Amino acid sequence: MDFTHFNKQKRAKMVDVSSKKETLRTARAYGEVKLSNDAYNAVKNGKIKKGDVLAVAQVAGIMGAKQTPYLIPMCHPIPIEGINIEFEMDDENDTIKIFSETRITAKTGIEMEAVTAVTVAALTIYDMCKAIDRSIEIKNIYLLHKEGGKSGIFHRD
Amino acid sequence: MDFTHFNKQKRAKMVDVSSKKETLRTARAYGEVKLSNDAYNAVKNGKIKKGDVLAVAQVAGIMGAKQTPYLIPMCHPIPIEGINIEFEMDDENDTIKIFSETRITAKTGIEMEAVTAVTVAALTIYDMCKAIDRSIEIKNIYLLHKEGGKSGIFHRD
Amino acid sequence: MDFTHFNKQKRAKMVDVSSKKETLRTARAYGEVKLSNDAYNAVKNGKIKKGDVLAVAQVAGIMGAKQTPYLIPMCHPIPIEGINIEFEMDDENDTIKIFSETRITAKTGIEMEAVTAVTVAALTIYDMCKAIDRSIEIKNIYLLHKEGGKSGIFHRD
Amino acid sequence: MDFTHFNKQKRAKMVDVSSKKETLRTARAYGEVKLSNDAYNAVKNGKIKKGDVLAVAQVAGIMGAKQTPYLIPMCHPIPIEGINIEFEMDDENDTIKIFSETRITAKTGIEMEAVTAVTVAALTIYDMCKAIDRSIEIKNIYLLHKEGGKSGIFHRD
Amino acid sequence: MDFTHFNKQKRAKMVDVSSKKETLRTARAYGEVKLSNDAYNAVKNGKIKKGDVLAVAQVAGIMGAKQTPYLIPMCHPIPIEGINIEFEMDDENDTIKIFSETRITAKTGIEMEAVTAVTVAALTIYDMCKAIDRSIEIKNIYLLHKEGGKSGIFHRD
Amino acid sequence: MDFTHFNKQKRAKMVDVSSKKETLRTARAYGEVKLSNDAYNAVKNGKIKKGDVLAVAQVAGIMGAKQTPYLIPMCHPIPIEGINIEFEMDDENDTIKIFSETRITAKTGIEMEAVTAVTVAALTIYDMCKAIDRSIEIKNIYLLHKEGGKSGIFHRD
Repeated sequence: MDFTHFNKQKRAKMVDVSSKKETLRTARAYGEVKLSNDAYNAVKNGKIKKGDVLAVAQVAGIMGAKQTPYLIPMCHPIPIEGINIEFEMDDENDTIKIFSETRITAKTGIEMEAVTAVTVAALTIYDMCKAIDRSIEIKNIYLLHKEGGKSGIFHRD
Repeated sequence: MDFTHFNKQKRAKMVDVSSKKETLRTARAYGEVKLSNDAYNAVKNGKIKKGDVLAVAQVAGIMGAKQTPYLIPMCHPIPIEGINIEFEMDDENDTIKIFSETRITAKTGIEMEAVTAVTVAALTIYDMCKAIDRSIEIKNIYLLHKEGGKSGIFHRD
Repeated sequence: MDFTHFNKQKRAKMVDVSSKKETLRTARAYGEVKLSNDAYNAVKNGKIKKGDVLAVAQVAGIMGAKQTPYLIPMCHPIPIEGINIEFEMDDENDTIKIFSETRITAKTGIEMEAVTAVTVAALTIYDMCKAIDRSIEIKNIYLLHKEGGKSGIFHRD
Repeated sequence: MDFTHFNKQKRAKMVDVSSKKETLRTARAYGEVKLSNDAYNAVKNGKIKKGDVLAVAQVAGIMGAKQTPYLIPMCHPIPIEGINIEFEMDDENDTIKIFSETRITAKTGIEMEAVTAVTVAALTIYDMCKAIDRSIEIKNIYLLHKEGGKSGIFHRD
Repeated sequence: MDFTHFNKQKRAKMVDVSSKKETLRTARAYGEVKLSNDAYNAVKNGKIKKGDVLAVAQVAGIMGAKQTPYLIPMCHPIPIEGINIEFEMDDENDTIKIFSETRITAKTGIEMEAVTAVTVAALTIYDMCKAIDRSIEIKNIYLLHKEGGKSGIFHRD
Repeated sequence: MDFTHFNKQKRAKMVDVSSKKETLRTARAYGEVKLSNDAYNAVKNGKIKKGDVLAVAQVAGIMGAKQTPYLIPMCHPIPIEGINIEFEMDDENDTIKIFSETRITAKTGIEMEAVTAVTVAALTIYDMCKAIDRSIEIKNIYLLHKEGGKSGIFHRD
């Protein structure tokens, strides 16, 4: 049981991956934004018009994923090869579900980019709805799937 | 019930706050990172050494808060006057609780900065622990308190 | 006839505005993207769906305006108070017309932010259409209107 | 006739290029800044001194090209291998002509970087001359040449 | 004797300056780049041509100063009101001397921006000369002068 | 004796490295921060607590290294594969010595990243100590070692 990010002085470092092999890697992440019923419906109805909340969140999530190594101190900067974000409206729970998928051929993984994509999309929904709902919750952000690295496939049910 | 971020074309805009008054504003936000018992203990024991996970998350959260207007598309760039982040170790639930406080004298609020501070700190804990725990969850991010704007005081119990 | 951006060594500097008064300033800019008839129609038809080209360009233009002082070397970083972008479809010329408006209360003007908003929106339209049209032209970017500074009102017909 | 940047939900995505082959790619772009006669001569005479307008525009254009994936939402971040910018003074039209060339070995093209280089250089000339000319126009930005990708050579006369 | 940047948990924070008064503040900083005689002369002779090393360093130093709060974790983002950089060629020591001056009306100081301006200019000279000199040294970076804050005037002889 | 960064117009360019071979490259750099005896001891004693000055400088140095191509105009953006920073306390001289190491497999070198890592770490120490010491000096920043490129091994004693 050991952290991979610390050096001999027990301080943080960016792990040296130079001797690893490049492999194709995919990651998928998930997150939720729980709204009041009013705010939820406002977003939902907005969806049928141009310029809806989710269109802004989509762009923010993709651009946010590209900022991952500049936000998360020990992340490697990597030339991301694909990012997708999809939304699912959960009417029963007044909740917007966010799914991301990221892909790269690199020596190190792409999961933080997937998690960051979901997170920045969620923050953007929060921002655009906060004027009508002060109790928004960003919830249950986690990795759904990961493959392509040395540690094998991870899949969460 | 209306969104404040859309223009006449029903597209997103950065709301014009030029005619608002500058007031002192404070926001506090909260979030959680749920770890496996192993990962939780590794972070906790790391705390007594230099260069621990939380020291990195602290710096990342503060720097992340400064990136708020460059991550969240409709946020106003504002000269933040103070950011603090504190952590609480919840041993019963293997959970790290994150608290942020942000402050500014401005025409617009500082709550997205508080929420972003918590979120980027959480993402950093995730990143530094993911090698020993693939099931980490970032949970329950929300606003705790907000005061100083036209909409008055918001306080969540 | 003199440049305001050069120091005694005839090198560029960021002009000292510290002794100027804060005033409310507004700027409006304009630009065009000329497309092939096919690409123009593809954008236009896309507009009635969610996630259209202009929704992405709108977000990019607003975020781009916030990057102005980090792109244009001698621009002052200023806390922008409002940004709006609107589009007009010119069917006769297969051209998308872009209009921006920016606002601030500051010691220095906001016109570069307006011009940059238009420009980054135009670049984004270019990017999203380039797979179906290699001959796109970004044309006729200029200031439409400016008021609030010492130099008075500028208005272009 | 289809857009390459939309997902199944008809929202924007960063196209997955992971299965494409790396090839050497070159792009060249062009743009113009039209000045008043006074402003044009001021830039031109400035050229013989150190710290001239074009020296600043040159640096801005190169640094701007590196910001391409952080400005244009669906652009892939790629490790650019070369950027050059050259200027041509068109005395008859009081116009500064800007030429850029970018190069990379990658799975995706480098043309947005070439177009962005020209654009940011043009914005910088605009900024540095705007105190003496409010009617500057940035005009006729387009791709001159592109080679190295699957779609073959594009050349504009 | 106490640090101003630590919170009750002895972790770093961005100091709360919200209750301080805005005052006009100026800072000046200094730094040196020591080159081999060959590299020094190459820079010096380059100065009489357009596009010289110092023109690039000048732009980089000014743009770098604007990045100060995004580089130095506990620095406040502030809307800088003026930045100047000047160079002095010290022929006897094959050394380029760099002087910066920064100015702002704010609740917190501008000295890190002055020091960062000098530093990024120095790094840029290093970068542009490193192909002809591997032994370059960046030396003696310090604050020359500071005034306008609560702590009074600091002046170094 | 020639600069590698200038084009035919004698202006700066980002050198074309597209035809070079990828090789594994390592760079190591060094720098010093000279403090007053009081400030030095304050940092040193702080080291045994969580959230010390060096922990913040460590994170800043690593994140700063990732900003190298966005700070230094002619630097190539490259996907860094490893960054480490270590500190040594020199009690005799009240000086903090900073060592960095960076690694990449690329067509161009990684030495500016190593030098920038040291420099940003030094600026951060400066920032966190400046309230108790106005005379801090950042000194003697240079390359210690470099290998992996066409120009062979460079080693400084």
